[in-house]
Amino acid sequence: MIYLDNAATTKPYDKVLEVLKAYNTHFYFNPSSAYLEGFEVKKAVNKARELLASLLGCNKQELYFTSGATEANNLFLQGVITSNKKDEYIFNLGEHSSVYEVANFIKSKGYTVHFAKLLPSGQVDLEYLKSLVNANTKLVSVMHISNETGAINDIKDIVRAVKSINSKTLIHCDGVQACGKINVNINNLGVDSYVVSSHKIHGPKGVGAIFVKEGVNIKPLILGGGQESGIRSGTENVAGIIAFSESAKLIIENMDANHKKVTALKNLFLENIKDKLSVKFNGLEDENSPYILSLSLAGIRGETLVHLLQKRGVIVNTGSSCSSNAKRAGNRVLEAIGLNKEEVSGSIRISFSEFNTEEEVIASCKIFIEEVLGLIKKVS
Amino acid sequence: MIYLDNAATTKPYDKVLEVLKAYNTHFYFNPSSAYLEGFEVKKAVNKARELLASLLGCNKQELYFTSGATEANNLFLQGVITSNKKDEYIFNLGEHSSVYEVANFIKSKGYTVHFAKLLPSGQVDLEYLKSLVNANTKLVSVMHISNETGAINDIKDIVRAVKSINSKTLIHCDGVQACGKINVNINNLGVDSYVVSSHKIHGPKGVGAIFVKEGVNIKPLILGGGQESGIRSGTENVAGIIAFSESAKLIIENMDANHKKVTALKNLFLENIKDKLSVKFNGLEDENSPYILSLSLAGIRGETLVHLLQKRGVIVNTGSSCSSNAKRAGNRVLEAIGLNKEEVSGSIRISFSEFNTEEEVIASCKIFIEEVLGLIKKVS
Repeated sequence: MIYLDNAATTKPYDKVLEVLKAYNTHFYFNPSSAYLEGFEVKKAVNKARELLASLLGCNKQELYFTSGATEANNLFLQGVITSNKKDEYIFNLGEHSSVYEVANFIKSKGYTVHFAKLLPSGQVDLEYLKSLVNANTKLVSVMHISNETGAINDIKDIVRAVKSINSKTLIHCDGVQACGKINVNINNLGVDSYVVSSHKIHGPKGVGAIFVKEGVNIKPLILGGGQESGIRSGTENVAGIIAFSESAKLIIENMDANHKKVTALKNLFLENIKDKLSVKFNGLEDENSPYILSLSLAGIRGETLVHLLQKRGVIVNTGSSCSSNAKRAGNRVLEAIGLNKEEVSGSIRISFSEFNTEEEVIASCKIFIEEVLGLIKKVS
Repeated sequence: MIYLDNAATTKPYDKVLEVLKAYNTHFYFNPSSAYLEGFEVKKAVNKARELLASLLGCNKQELYFTSGATEANNLFLQGVITSNKKDEYIFNLGEHSSVYEVANFIKSKGYTVHFAKLLPSGQVDLEYLKSLVNANTKLVSVMHISNETGAINDIKDIVRAVKSINSKTLIHCDGVQACGKINVNINNLGVDSYVVSSHKIHGPKGVGAIFVKEGVNIKPLILGGGQESGIRSGTENVAGIIAFSESAKLIIENMDANHKKVTALKNLFLENIKDKLSVKFNGLEDENSPYILSLSLAGIRGETLVHLLQKRGVIVNTGSSCSSNAKRAGNRVLEAIGLNKEEVSGSIRISFSEFNTEEEVIASCKIFIEEVLGLIKKVS
């Protein structure tokens, strides 16, 4: 099997298995318990927090573990809502469903919610976004890298632009597809909130983390025993948290080498198919994240191609699989960057990881071309 | 080490390690993805749901996985709140902090919240509770087994009594300490909601589940891709979910034998210490869950004893460790059953699992007696 759906989820590192085994065998104690073994486990959780914070460029006191990025996005976005109905919220139209659905929720509560449109590059239209900011703007939410297209938003620039209009506006950034793939320094970005996910960087599912800038008050979503400084109650998923931080360490330590490797793989993929197929690259070929390749193929349906490729051992996806809705979340994003119906329907997302090889790319391109040509022939 | 703090968390079964390894090695695919490998993983999640539902006596369509019991309690209790300020809420005063803190939250929103007092047995005072129910009662929340004392509430009886006064009142039950320990048949209990936790039954941390009766509408707490039928979005913690359902199977299959074994261990513990120490059993000795033994010892501080026992390899706790608050959540419960200050301060919770042995109990009693007598001598 050639796995090219790494934006959906990734194969865990061997280190993850080691950590899960150790913490489910020897160090299973409750971190909140009143004896040494519990303290030691709590210490391990805080060491994981310290490690992840140092990798992401923030203070450990500003980093909280959650059950994943979806919860983390909800925690901040629901957590900043006040009773002031004059507050306005701005969301990048290309956000992940765990942000987009909260935007709709806030709208349904009677607040003014604006959606900032996308450029054909897949990036948020900053000029348009700026035009939406005013004295009532409570929050701006822009993801770091699009999970659908791989487009990279210049968060630092966006923060600067927004805060120069309204310095009190909070900036939330979903960094799920950026963490471990490009350099992320949260303090340097200047955001008020930043979200990362474990299972997108070869860690276990069911863990994520959120940076919340010191001084920014949010209401907790989950109440109880007061874990995670009261921001997120519930017995800590100790094994998951430690495995997550170890995964972050591994992926960030090798980030530059991985990036170079994956860029070469992406270029090889494009080179191999370009003159054989009529294919549209969704985004800016040289500026996108190399980890995500969104293509539109004329005259085929993405779903059909995914199935045919799967039968031959090549795993790609039509777009975001982080949604179990009947209507694909990805369609909204591809439409927003200007694709027509046929292009949306013919879209495919190929996403790489450090585990992929040149041989895999060459083999999958051969199969890819055969299946696409077969489909086109069938239709015509 | 002799681990007697199984109400705080438990040592995972070997089976858990197997499942975690398999699903983090071979079956790591995103259950929402559009290809066979994803479908197979989704099928495995639904098979786990079916298994757990059959073990708990409910329909699989009524069971949703969460990141744990704390989230599950919040999901239901926050999820039923409406804008009708006439709604009244009744909470058992002995509830776990993940319920109790939501009660305080609801109160802070301006709703009428009643706390039903406890009997000296540790059970909720049903007569008092009934006196609180009226036409405006939206919800009654009573845990199945107290995590502090092991007192068992007769949920079926409570449901019958409450619904006979107001048939529309929703009944929420935190079943964390009951699942796998006593027979739980949700349909038979008649509750509208029931919560279980993985890490209390030798499963991994970071997973739980909630039963929500068909026809009961709740607002989701976490919005996004629409997983778990829209009740709980976020990529499923696949490995955790499957390991949880396997743990539930193992513990429930052996429930009767375990119960007999643990009852004998509890009785052995009490027999061994009774004539050597001045000890008060908190609850009804013959009716409590044998898994939890709450004792008050005159003239000592629980915390001090916990530390001394830990040094000699015996792990017990002062009470609930599911709270990282400075003030112990357990104190509220012990005070509510009528303990005086000294008894609260001198309380110890010993909690067993099927992994404990007679030899461990005999050895730990010897150490327990020595340390308690040493402490009393020191003081006097």
